[in-house]
Amino acid sequence: MSHHTGDTLTDRASTTKVAIYGPGAMGLHITRLLAARGVRIVAAITRPGSAKLGEDLGVLAGVAPLGVCVRSDAEEALEETEPDIVVVAVDTYLDEAMFDIYATIVRANANVITLAEEMLYPFPTAGPRAKELDELAKQHGVTVTGTGHQDAYWVNLVSVLVGTAQTLRTVEGELAWNVDDFGPALAAQQQVGRTVEEFTEWLSSTERKPTFGRTSLYALAAAIGLTPAQATTRTTPVVATAETHCKALEKDIAAGKVLGYTDTDTLQTEEGIDLVISSTGKVYSPGESDFNEWRTTGEPPLHLRNERVVTADTTCTTLINRIPHVLGAEPGIVTIDRLPQLRFQPAADLLIGGLGGRMVDSAAGSA
Amino acid sequence: MSHHTGDTLTDRASTTKVAIYGPGAMGLHITRLLAARGVRIVAAITRPGSAKLGEDLGVLAGVAPLGVCVRSDAEEALEETEPDIVVVAVDTYLDEAMFDIYATIVRANANVITLAEEMLYPFPTAGPRAKELDELAKQHGVTVTGTGHQDAYWVNLVSVLVGTAQTLRTVEGELAWNVDDFGPALAAQQQVGRTVEEFTEWLSSTERKPTFGRTSLYALAAAIGLTPAQATTRTTPVVATAETHCKALEKDIAAGKVLGYTDTDTLQTEEGIDLVISSTGKVYSPGESDFNEWRTTGEPPLHLRNERVVTADTTCTTLINRIPHVLGAEPGIVTIDRLPQLRFQPAADLLIGGLGGRMVDSAAGSA
Repeated sequence: MSHHTGDTLTDRASTTKVAIYGPGAMGLHITRLLAARGVRIVAAITRPGSAKLGEDLGVLAGVAPLGVCVRSDAEEALEETEPDIVVVAVDTYLDEAMFDIYATIVRANANVITLAEEMLYPFPTAGPRAKELDELAKQHGVTVTGTGHQDAYWVNLVSVLVGTAQTLRTVEGELAWNVDDFGPALAAQQQVGRTVEEFTEWLSSTERKPTFGRTSLYALAAAIGLTPAQATTRTTPVVATAETHCKALEKDIAAGKVLGYTDTDTLQTEEGIDLVISSTGKVYSPGESDFNEWRTTGEPPLHLRNERVVTADTTCTTLINRIPHVLGAEPGIVTIDRLPQLRFQPAADLLIGGLGGRMVDSAAGSA
Repeated sequence: MSHHTGDTLTDRASTTKVAIYGPGAMGLHITRLLAARGVRIVAAITRPGSAKLGEDLGVLAGVAPLGVCVRSDAEEALEETEPDIVVVAVDTYLDEAMFDIYATIVRANANVITLAEEMLYPFPTAGPRAKELDELAKQHGVTVTGTGHQDAYWVNLVSVLVGTAQTLRTVEGELAWNVDDFGPALAAQQQVGRTVEEFTEWLSSTERKPTFGRTSLYALAAAIGLTPAQATTRTTPVVATAETHCKALEKDIAAGKVLGYTDTDTLQTEEGIDLVISSTGKVYSPGESDFNEWRTTGEPPLHLRNERVVTADTTCTTLINRIPHVLGAEPGIVTIDRLPQLRFQPAADLLIGGLGGRMVDSAAGSA
């Protein structure tokens, strides 16, 4: 009954070669998970000047040495090691610097899978660069896909859920994530420790980039088959009611100070169905944990809740389970609504690179 | 961005022709939902001797007359009306009588979509008949698929959820459904109103047929990519702690009497991952409502809960949203693990019959 019958793991192990671009908290967690699954990691790349240069990726990740030293000469590293796919965990937006990273990988004929939030659905908010990258990937016969926690919990679980609806009026999600899971850069970005006045000033003076929620709603609309019309974002601070310790910043946040904020994004669609996501990123108090909760109005009303989700873990595990789909996808930027249904990938599927022949062709092409 | 752009509803409306086989509670609810979406219903079929013979299907369903009278001459009805797909809501198991119904439809070159629980994944428990029906469907170039509430809530939401796992040890579901939602036949089948002694005697003397849970676990294993090894079922009665009214039987159930029972099914797999589903079908007390809750052990542990699900509704809506997938599927018995990701089907997709050209070929073949 299984489509694995007849293959043995050893026959085909080590066929898929993976590189890690960005050995930060997420990149190293992905390294640990890939190593535990027996996937072959062939290269690790970081920015010039990083303190991690020359270190063994396995040692940095807290597992056995992998014989893979972190380097910053991306082009040479990719040319020498010929990865089938490069995991990119560097930055959120498709800005010029990130475009250059993706383009370097694509020009080395390797596929890209990334946690970068804007890459989940980059066309509405980063159109020109996304189009250029899409064309470059098509020229080189490789795929570029953004995935992560949102893929499962903010898009595809919701899309399957609404597959049980007769009619939809609104699809509303509420979720929270802990700033302390993601390090000091994100804590600063979430305005942790500021006064409400400082927060308000920041909010009014800042050209906010597109929220994670907005990008997810575009992906959700595509997955459901809806046509985006108008997107709006409303942002409100979460204020500490008692002194709260922030692990990421290694300090206590006094009562009355900002612990983070809530973005409420709404995407109206031409079909008249409103998609809403209310996302709170803050320093958690003891006892709080990540959750996702979705409700629809329409006939019948629908509900879904995930409790005690460890977002930092599921971001990495989702990326790993998507590797075979990206290896098997058509060339270009392929957003998650165009991939097969997300599923658990037993080790064999992960090692042999998934669903079809393209990965083999791609590997041959880059050899 | 939408793949609907360029099509107007009126261009292609009425392309898909649907017939209803079994105008009972579920068949009539599906009729109401299809009529509300503007889908063309061309025939209604029931057993000889039914009190519904000659009645208008729309009137029976409580909507406007559809000009479709219920008849029992299935072959002639199908030949005259040439439905693309027949919704079958008659009985659970692939016994001889149900085989004959499916075979009659398939011989009329129409696709079959059914709520019959065993048809969700019939090969392990009804192998010979399933194989014969599969071959017959292939000969006639049509698809036979079982779907319903389980498709979304017991299989595909769970499969997407475990797509965020690094490792799995157990996948355990707990759920409840209300006997009163499904009429007196099912209430009798759930032993409602019996004494515990009668229940125990029934359980020990009865050759139980495969449970709904077991069939769902086989479908879940296929969706996750696991190989079934050993299946077991444990059954325990749910006893009333206070007098409880049973709407389906139109009587009160005294304290100490049976309100229904819980089947706990376990499917061990060759991969060492245990799938478990604990399904309670009983008369609800005030305040109780349907839910599904899933938990996995492994890294990381995962969780999903649906509250206040109206199982009787989502059974019908899921079937309707699956129609385009069945029309677009390859011939034979195609189980839900082999269909595209379940999704909301805007009216246009439903009316034009979905995903590709096969439906058009099939319609042409039966013309």
